[in-house]
Amino acid sequence: MTLCDIGNTTFDFYRDGVKEKIFIDDYELKQSDEKIFYICVNEKVSARLKEFSNWIDLRSFIDMKNYYATMGIDRIVGCEALRSGVIIDAGSAITVDVVKNGVFAGGYICLGLHVSQKAYREISPRLDYSYNFEIDLDKIPKNSGDALTYGQLGLLYRDVISHGLPVYLTGGDAVKLKKLFKNAVLDDELLFKGMKKIMKKANLC
Amino acid sequence: MTLCDIGNTTFDFYRDGVKEKIFIDDYELKQSDEKIFYICVNEKVSARLKEFSNWIDLRSFIDMKNYYATMGIDRIVGCEALRSGVIIDAGSAITVDVVKNGVFAGGYICLGLHVSQKAYREISPRLDYSYNFEIDLDKIPKNSGDALTYGQLGLLYRDVISHGLPVYLTGGDAVKLKKLFKNAVLDDELLFKGMKKIMKKANLC
Repeated sequence: MTLCDIGNTTFDFYRDGVKEKIFIDDYELKQSDEKIFYICVNEKVSARLKEFSNWIDLRSFIDMKNYYATMGIDRIVGCEALRSGVIIDAGSAITVDVVKNGVFAGGYICLGLHVSQKAYREISPRLDYSYNFEIDLDKIPKNSGDALTYGQLGLLYRDVISHGLPVYLTGGDAVKLKKLFKNAVLDDELLFKGMKKIMKKANLC
Repeated sequence: MTLCDIGNTTFDFYRDGVKEKIFIDDYELKQSDEKIFYICVNEKVSARLKEFSNWIDLRSFIDMKNYYATMGIDRIVGCEALRSGVIIDAGSAITVDVVKNGVFAGGYICLGLHVSQKAYREISPRLDYSYNFEIDLDKIPKNSGDALTYGQLGLLYRDVISHGLPVYLTGGDAVKLKKLFKNAVLDDELLFKGMKKIMKKANLC
């Protein structure tokens, strides 16, 4: 069984527990005998994949009644992986989704680490600080570097833990955020777990 | 008595309750008989003002032991205006400072409204939404536009009200934020009030 999570820049394949990341520009799409179950947030790639019968879009197998129409398919599939928890997917944006008793309770979107640090720098050179992942988020800061970390990541942390649910971290910056969310589960296979659950429900595997 | 709050782009004068804003490039600095008590975050202007004996920097009259060395003088003067409260100064950055029983308890810095919306847009055209100031922040969002508003402004709101203190809004975007912080005091003279308090303590008026 081959799974593929297609983002804006890469194909992320998953075959029997082995992951492979290939940049979209480096991958030649063609018809083959290998059935590939995929999710895709990239509209251009989505359009091209319709030509190939061995690429099967999992979107149509999801019960969408709990979600909203413009919600990213990656967020939806993350939610499908869990019974209860808060999922933080930290990439160019940081998406946060809350699932309670198997039902999506809502979610929100923050700026990613790179983008928000760049935005601070653009306001003023005096705000050119790297985030401090050793910060004590139980105290309101009394220094400039921590004031930025708290203003962007501290507020996120405090909201996430206020839900009192297990926290799951995935995405490219998950390892960095794990330093703040010390009790979170780091899971870089969360989306593939969600995809497998959807397939089981739909009797595709 | 003339007060002046000097920012990165303007001189904000205050004379007997009347405010006047003049762009730095449009204002000719010169020696005069008018004593002007000022605070200044603009390093270039600060250096030039030392030439003029009628311009009096209030920084040296503040008891700095409660603050930290790199804290902006505008934030410090805002804190000096209050006995207890959370001060939100919403400009190109949004600074948040907590004062309890006359003592600075800490603070943090978020991205300003304009800068953070621009940063979302730069991540993806799918994140090109204007903030929704009518959002219900007691619910986790279930639509894309509100997901951004909540991710940036909702987290700020939830943290600020968690302190259980009166909230004071100042700065260029204070009126917009007032729609979210319905119980906050909108006060565009907060810094001048802080300056007057410092002057009284120092017997300058």
